[in-house]
Amino acid sequence: MSKKEKQQFVNEITPMEVDFPQWYTDVILKTDLVDYSPVRGFMVIKHYGYAIWENIQQYLDKRFKDTGHKNCYFPLLIPESLLKKEAEHVEGFAPEVAWVTHGGNEELAERLCVRPTSETIICDMYSKWLKSYRDLPFLFNQWCSVVRWEKSTRPFLRTSEFLWQEGHTLHETYEEAQEETLQMLNIYKEMAEEALAIPVVIGQKSEKEKFAGAYATYTMEALMHDGKALQAGTSHNLGQHFTTAFDIKYSDRNGELQNPYHTSWGVSTRLIGGVIMVHGDNRGLVLPPRIAPTQVVIVPIASHKGGVNEKAQELYSDLRSSLRVELDDRENYSPGWKFNDWEMKGVPVRVEIGPKDIEKNQAMVFRRDTLEKEAVSLDELKERVEGLLEDIHNNLLLKASQMRDEHTYYVKSFDELKEVMERRPGFVKAMWCEERECEDRIKAETGVTVRCIPFEQEKLGDTCPFCGKPAKKMAYFAKAY
Amino acid sequence: MSKKEKQQFVNEITPMEVDFPQWYTDVILKTDLVDYSPVRGFMVIKHYGYAIWENIQQYLDKRFKDTGHKNCYFPLLIPESLLKKEAEHVEGFAPEVAWVTHGGNEELAERLCVRPTSETIICDMYSKWLKSYRDLPFLFNQWCSVVRWEKSTRPFLRTSEFLWQEGHTLHETYEEAQEETLQMLNIYKEMAEEALAIPVVIGQKSEKEKFAGAYATYTMEALMHDGKALQAGTSHNLGQHFTTAFDIKYSDRNGELQNPYHTSWGVSTRLIGGVIMVHGDNRGLVLPPRIAPTQVVIVPIASHKGGVNEKAQELYSDLRSSLRVELDDRENYSPGWKFNDWEMKGVPVRVEIGPKDIEKNQAMVFRRDTLEKEAVSLDELKERVEGLLEDIHNNLLLKASQMRDEHTYYVKSFDELKEVMERRPGFVKAMWCEERECEDRIKAETGVTVRCIPFEQEKLGDTCPFCGKPAKKMAYFAKAY
Repeated sequence: MSKKEKQQFVNEITPMEVDFPQWYTDVILKTDLVDYSPVRGFMVIKHYGYAIWENIQQYLDKRFKDTGHKNCYFPLLIPESLLKKEAEHVEGFAPEVAWVTHGGNEELAERLCVRPTSETIICDMYSKWLKSYRDLPFLFNQWCSVVRWEKSTRPFLRTSEFLWQEGHTLHETYEEAQEETLQMLNIYKEMAEEALAIPVVIGQKSEKEKFAGAYATYTMEALMHDGKALQAGTSHNLGQHFTTAFDIKYSDRNGELQNPYHTSWGVSTRLIGGVIMVHGDNRGLVLPPRIAPTQVVIVPIASHKGGVNEKAQELYSDLRSSLRVELDDRENYSPGWKFNDWEMKGVPVRVEIGPKDIEKNQAMVFRRDTLEKEAVSLDELKERVEGLLEDIHNNLLLKASQMRDEHTYYVKSFDELKEVMERRPGFVKAMWCEERECEDRIKAETGVTVRCIPFEQEKLGDTCPFCGKPAKKMAYFAKAY
Repeated sequence: MSKKEKQQFVNEITPMEVDFPQWYTDVILKTDLVDYSPVRGFMVIKHYGYAIWENIQQYLDKRFKDTGHKNCYFPLLIPESLLKKEAEHVEGFAPEVAWVTHGGNEELAERLCVRPTSETIICDMYSKWLKSYRDLPFLFNQWCSVVRWEKSTRPFLRTSEFLWQEGHTLHETYEEAQEETLQMLNIYKEMAEEALAIPVVIGQKSEKEKFAGAYATYTMEALMHDGKALQAGTSHNLGQHFTTAFDIKYSDRNGELQNPYHTSWGVSTRLIGGVIMVHGDNRGLVLPPRIAPTQVVIVPIASHKGGVNEKAQELYSDLRSSLRVELDDRENYSPGWKFNDWEMKGVPVRVEIGPKDIEKNQAMVFRRDTLEKEAVSLDELKERVEGLLEDIHNNLLLKASQMRDEHTYYVKSFDELKEVMERRPGFVKAMWCEERECEDRIKAETGVTVRCIPFEQEKLGDTCPFCGKPAKKMAYFAKAY
């Protein structure tokens, strides 16, 4: 690779230490993940980004089906009157919905909103479908896009439209609904760790931060490279709030009419933003092997020499029987240029094969996470690559856990919180009074929000370090996306 | 099963000979395929219907990827100014789009339409992405929902929102674009025959019936039980109409700027309507095995007797390793009731296992398409069921082909056409002048439209039987959904 080529790649991505938001923008635009669209705040998910989403979908869809859920599809547009039925819900969502006022050439008698989430229209249908306790539980999910009019947007992290799944279930008892809520949160946690190699903290949202209309919201929170938190998935126990408002009733085991208990839960393309900001480095993306669209790229070296392309093709055929592999046989680019291009795209493993390697019956194998290269006998190549992909997954999860632990702080006073946030932000653990006034003040003065009250509690003291009132629980605090 | 139970099932579905539209409505509503939503013209696709769509998706997505296409996601909302760029396109679609005029609490400076199809926004992005002939071809597809404001709707067949896929490709030459257009049409044909067991006629649309903005539209047409045709998928060679209007240019092999050639192609949840109307009977659905959500249902008989449930569970575990199987062990329903329920739902194969069967080491195996029942040794059960599923697929395709052939007529005069349509409608083959005036008159007087000018031509004469002018091609005519 020429000096000019090297220079070009270095210049393409702003170092994250210099300007983290610019690093993020550079990475997503230069790797075919996403692009800005002509509609402000709306993104185009390009093929490389969409393929990551497909892999996440595949993992989750299997988990959902294995736990008895079935997919459905509910309408995109929701009548204003339905949105208004649950008081807290409309208050939470009405300010950020897109309104359809005309169909064809006619003005509509009632405005329709583009779904920001589908509790209302789904509850309307459930009220029609549910008759008897024998019909319960209802365990349905849908994969779709939703629209929430955002003022300030960033691709994947906060956009006016995003892709997601939303599960909506009904149960006979509060306990069953709570069990479902936590089961789905745990599936999300396992997905984050097993598929995305992202460690997460799980716990309950504060009253202020819970979903509009929920009885309780549970969340998983991940820590990004810049010390900001990302809410990566939520699961809501909705109690009987919506089932009462939408008059969903069933005849119970004693023949009496009851409102069922209700949950909803969702994760979105935001997860892709998390993957980028947890694993990426100054060369670009670093993709966890289980969701990487391409797990292995094969680059022939001196491919004009006899036998190289044939051998590369042979390795390709062999590896692709069990792995997602690309053979980069483009003729207009040098191997060096290709190396950088695939490193930027975060492909976990690169296999290089040239005339000298063929002579020695070996290939050079490069791993993106540690940038290490080793010679591997062609007889053991497939096994070694498969092993490496496992290693890379485990190493990414470990590194991310260490990064998070290093940037998780304990604070005992408001000043300490401010100090941490000025020095190097991260997760902050502290005792908390759980009062709204205290929460509002922390946010106003530092931009920090309560991320969650984690299931794993530690006893750090008796008083809230921020207001001095008696503390109820330990909470995680952070600046957040 | 009691007499009352039998009566109940008979009454649930109107016989198709009595009232075909009512038969269709009864079948779709009583089998958990679909439901009406609170928004007029919008359907809810219930789990059983959605599972069919998932199986169709799985088949097609693999075919698309095997032919080099990648999935993306483009925004739901399209600015009015983009929709207006291609003159024929806006004329075709503007009357049937839903308009978003407000985002949150603010009125938008420019109206946004909910995508009726995505050529315009995709072309806008392609104009940004395409630089050189080296980037070509562009082979992208998206799975999404689209909205077209319809006055008169029927679930699956014509609704204001439906699910579909839309492929959008760019090519260097007209020939390559034409090859792509026909390749995708052929994949659709294979999907119809291999997955849905529906025989189709493929050919070109008339100028009147082609897609708004297309150079040429190709279609596959299927014949329903009531003698009406269903347009089941289309593939468009868009020429340079959109690429010129959207100023998509690339630098060609000589360094000169050129507009690329363009295709788009799509199939939708309408296919499910086709499956119902081609294979269904007066007992309900008859689902082709390759897309049936449940391929086999196991019903235990006298399940209170020792060993029955255990044996049923054993068969279930065995069959589900390679098939989509349900074990119906509901306690509140008699076997007879279950038989009817699963027949209505069109499950291809039913396995009945009771104490007497266990004694004989056999099960009773029922096939939905012919209603035949046979005893099968438990040692051969899996193999026999797998074979039966293949048989059922082939038989359904054969029966549908025979039904179509029996209701494909040749006509030599306008009167004959009218006669056929009054007696028993179907496909009508006739020579045709290809003139718009003639086409308009046929439609006005009989409700019949030109379905396509088939690739497989027959020479039936020299003049158009409808207007007497010289005939150019043989065409298929029919009443259509």
